[in-house]
Amino acid sequence: MGESGERRTATATERRFLEPFRGEALDVPPIWLMRQAGRYLPEYRATRAEAGGFLKLCYTPALAAEVTLQPIRRYGFDAAILFSDILVVPDALGQGVRFVEGEGPRLDPIRSSADLAQLDPDKTAEKFGLVSETVARLRQDLPTETALIGFCGAPWTVATYMVQGQGSPDQAEARLWAYRDPDGFGQLIEMLVETSITYLDQQVKAGADCLQIFDTWAGSLPDDEFDRWVVAPTRAIREAIKDLHPDVPVIGFPRGAGATAVWYVSETGVDGIGCDTATPPFVMSEAFEDEDVVVQGNLDPLLLVAGGSRLDERVDEILDLMRGKRFIFNLGHGIVPQTPPEHVAQLVKRVRARS
Amino acid sequence: MGESGERRTATATERRFLEPFRGEALDVPPIWLMRQAGRYLPEYRATRAEAGGFLKLCYTPALAAEVTLQPIRRYGFDAAILFSDILVVPDALGQGVRFVEGEGPRLDPIRSSADLAQLDPDKTAEKFGLVSETVARLRQDLPTETALIGFCGAPWTVATYMVQGQGSPDQAEARLWAYRDPDGFGQLIEMLVETSITYLDQQVKAGADCLQIFDTWAGSLPDDEFDRWVVAPTRAIREAIKDLHPDVPVIGFPRGAGATAVWYVSETGVDGIGCDTATPPFVMSEAFEDEDVVVQGNLDPLLLVAGGSRLDERVDEILDLMRGKRFIFNLGHGIVPQTPPEHVAQLVKRVRARS
Repeated sequence: MGESGERRTATATERRFLEPFRGEALDVPPIWLMRQAGRYLPEYRATRAEAGGFLKLCYTPALAAEVTLQPIRRYGFDAAILFSDILVVPDALGQGVRFVEGEGPRLDPIRSSADLAQLDPDKTAEKFGLVSETVARLRQDLPTETALIGFCGAPWTVATYMVQGQGSPDQAEARLWAYRDPDGFGQLIEMLVETSITYLDQQVKAGADCLQIFDTWAGSLPDDEFDRWVVAPTRAIREAIKDLHPDVPVIGFPRGAGATAVWYVSETGVDGIGCDTATPPFVMSEAFEDEDVVVQGNLDPLLLVAGGSRLDERVDEILDLMRGKRFIFNLGHGIVPQTPPEHVAQLVKRVRARS
Repeated sequence: MGESGERRTATATERRFLEPFRGEALDVPPIWLMRQAGRYLPEYRATRAEAGGFLKLCYTPALAAEVTLQPIRRYGFDAAILFSDILVVPDALGQGVRFVEGEGPRLDPIRSSADLAQLDPDKTAEKFGLVSETVARLRQDLPTETALIGFCGAPWTVATYMVQGQGSPDQAEARLWAYRDPDGFGQLIEMLVETSITYLDQQVKAGADCLQIFDTWAGSLPDDEFDRWVVAPTRAIREAIKDLHPDVPVIGFPRGAGATAVWYVSETGVDGIGCDTATPPFVMSEAFEDEDVVVQGNLDPLLLVAGGSRLDERVDEILDLMRGKRFIFNLGHGIVPQTPPEHVAQLVKRVRARS
């Protein structure tokens, strides 16, 4: 090991977030929350207004780093997650992405192999470079003990937006293309796999010490399609990242995977499994026992809105169940905008009160 | 047994749809499809236009019976399902329900115990009577061999619309009320349990020989809330119906329940379990083996849109897996409007080609 290698190791050992991935079950589990940088925080809303648009915020390293740091300053989470969006990848590939206030993302749909010509993986350097710059700033500005999580959307979930042109309750257009023309749809997925590997590699090189792959719409697929469009692409990304960065843990979050989450873990080889809100505690505590995987989850974000003694009780239930396991406390889905910031403080205090 | 009892038994034995509930595993499973009467059929669109509105269609027995019969004439399904809507219950209770073309249902939200005063279970007779009239007409007009399924929405799912005032991706308002004021929300659920029992009892008395409880949003809840708002109300309905009509099977469809569907079956005592699209075949074929339950499902409705040899192959896979089991072939969710009617014919032919 050279000098820089030693320095890196020395720094990383101070990050308790990473300990479960090294085999440690901590009495007080590490905690971070999906969408911890977001609209529920007044300082986020101020910075977003300053940026003048959601994607501008993602592409302005000083501001993206600032909103990433905001919840760390408030709550001292064990990990920060890069502030960005899963649609940065299609945007960087050349599919124009707009965010319509109150309506969500809009894209010009890609629905055939011919449409793929509009995308260019060689074009991504500029926008990915801005994200890497955010990561580098963060690694400099974050407390040494705070881990930094990089991320991307899983190819399947990103593809659902690219094909539908917006969010949808059933991801119908992507599912139909996949059935009617699996080779053509497979080209899109393959492009997303390769581009995501490049993107995540750059995030790690810039300073990310963990990665999460968000597969929000993993739950809409029957098993054969799940294997082809969720499991295989995630495994390909995970394997490529492991070749490049063997020590960087990869967490998968196949929301809605239900009974197939264990299959997802064993087939993709992810180091961590994000469990969604509907995952019963007995599944979290027992179903993954034969897998070499860290379990993360899964408080209901709506209970974090409601607060009160019920919040404390549920936190205790989850902690009791996961005692002695390699576990990271999180929500089962992202924080919602109406969450009172003081409830987040209550949650962090409750988790840290464990001994 | 009196004469009428004997006649009823004689008729019912001709309905192969009911045989799995009597312990028979058929070589060719019975088949029906959720939303088999619907917009994918040109004759449905014509009748709906004639009715002049969706709820008018539900409340006009001659027309509601007509659209129920349309798919039976075309495809000879083993069961017809009453044409109606899960929001007939809140509408009959006095919460005004409107269907906005292309946008879905709109209701004036109920969000507190005080709002419950707007609802009146004694008001339901007129609208429920129209539905019963539809059922009675159907039992007269359907082929003797065709079973007739009555239904209601599960209290949880119906409540999500009543509280949100419309459809929503996360059912946030109902979940928040349930957390903040479980007693108040519990009063709404209790009213829905009682009203649903009345409604289903009337459907059976009018001629329904099976019942399905649709719980579309069962998958959004963590386990403790799932037990309280999905499992307990469903068990209460099922027990009341069994007391009144011991021979009428009750099918539960807890969409998105994932790993907890087995728990749902054992705790509610339903006679049939509807499996959603994401339920892996090995769960359908093995997970319910210790339960005394008929499994129903779960072809992807999008594959029915796509059609082709892939459709035939998947149908064969499902049939192979469920061979020797008490099984009813269905989709994993409702037929979507863009489904080509000839694909439905292809599906029925494929299922019936089994020997």
